[in-house]
Amino acid sequence: MAEAEEEHRAVGRPRSELARRAVLDSAYALLEDEGIDDFSIDAVSRRSGVARTTIYRRWPSKSVLAIDSFLECFRPQLDAARGGDPEENLRALVASLAAALAGPSGRVAASVVAHAQRDAETQRLFRERFSGPLRRESAIVLGAGVASGHFRADLDVERVIDAFVGAVYFRLLVGSSLDRSWVDALCDTLLIGCRARGGHDGGL
Amino acid sequence: MAEAEEEHRAVGRPRSELARRAVLDSAYALLEDEGIDDFSIDAVSRRSGVARTTIYRRWPSKSVLAIDSFLECFRPQLDAARGGDPEENLRALVASLAAALAGPSGRVAASVVAHAQRDAETQRLFRERFSGPLRRESAIVLGAGVASGHFRADLDVERVIDAFVGAVYFRLLVGSSLDRSWVDALCDTLLIGCRARGGHDGGL
Repeated sequence: MAEAEEEHRAVGRPRSELARRAVLDSAYALLEDEGIDDFSIDAVSRRSGVARTTIYRRWPSKSVLAIDSFLECFRPQLDAARGGDPEENLRALVASLAAALAGPSGRVAASVVAHAQRDAETQRLFRERFSGPLRRESAIVLGAGVASGHFRADLDVERVIDAFVGAVYFRLLVGSSLDRSWVDALCDTLLIGCRARGGHDGGL
Repeated sequence: MAEAEEEHRAVGRPRSELARRAVLDSAYALLEDEGIDDFSIDAVSRRSGVARTTIYRRWPSKSVLAIDSFLECFRPQLDAARGGDPEENLRALVASLAAALAGPSGRVAASVVAHAQRDAETQRLFRERFSGPLRRESAIVLGAGVASGHFRADLDVERVIDAFVGAVYFRLLVGSSLDRSWVDALCDTLLIGCRARGGHDGGL
């Protein structure tokens, strides 16, 4: 079954999609192995077997390729459930971000943000392609809680996002633990300030 | 008057204190100019006129010297008022951290945390000498609010600190603005969850 699926994919996908996948996977493997400082389109070309010119056609700079490959491997790790209990959805989102950053992706994520301090394009791409989508996803989760009346109507959704994304990322950067008990304690603390008065605020 | 003071200092301070000051000031100026990557004890020696051996006696590695000089220039910028209103004290602390990071110290702070991703000693020193003292100072400010009954008795002080330090630092690293209106909105949001019930939670 898995084999049949694999074959179907190989047949069904155009050659360019296979090359794209090979480039992104090789790029991510290089980022995991060596970080972004020694990362280069030449090295990705050698590792993936895809010609430099083909890579440059799609990714005009090493920053763009690095960020794209990071995101391609990182995004699927985030839990973006929207139905059900808004508090559980927020906890799941924060927990998935922390779990992803506690794993191998964390080293890549730290390396990318470090590089962004010396390279304005990487910083802009990180903000636009990583931070931006993560914030929009988070705003939907929190906004659903506001819409249902579970969270306060005047909740400053963007500042709650600043708080939990910043807390998780900063902990990664200083090398502190991102375990589930820390995530739960952070969410407990932030959720107290999110809940609408009456009914929902006695749960902790 | 200023001159007399200067002379008094020069006479009153031992030679080693003058050398220490010269080394730390030169180190910080180098960090501001070039970041931590090109930073070296040799360069500090050239700039300060203090012999390499003298520098090494006090600072066994470039990481230790870089962190020490960063802290020496950064710490005095933090507002650590403890009397008066606990909410105003927290706002002042967060605002002073954001203002310091929005200025020239921010480039150095970003460079140090970036370097920490490739150098375990720098990461440890950053955690122990920057993050640790800042957290202890913040815990005193928040703890005073708990002790006075203004903040909830079960407030998870450490998680509130994670939230605001992380939020401020992450914003620096992604290149977003750290202006006072953002600081106030962040503090508004976090303070809602800090206040004891009744009496104090209707102010916003």
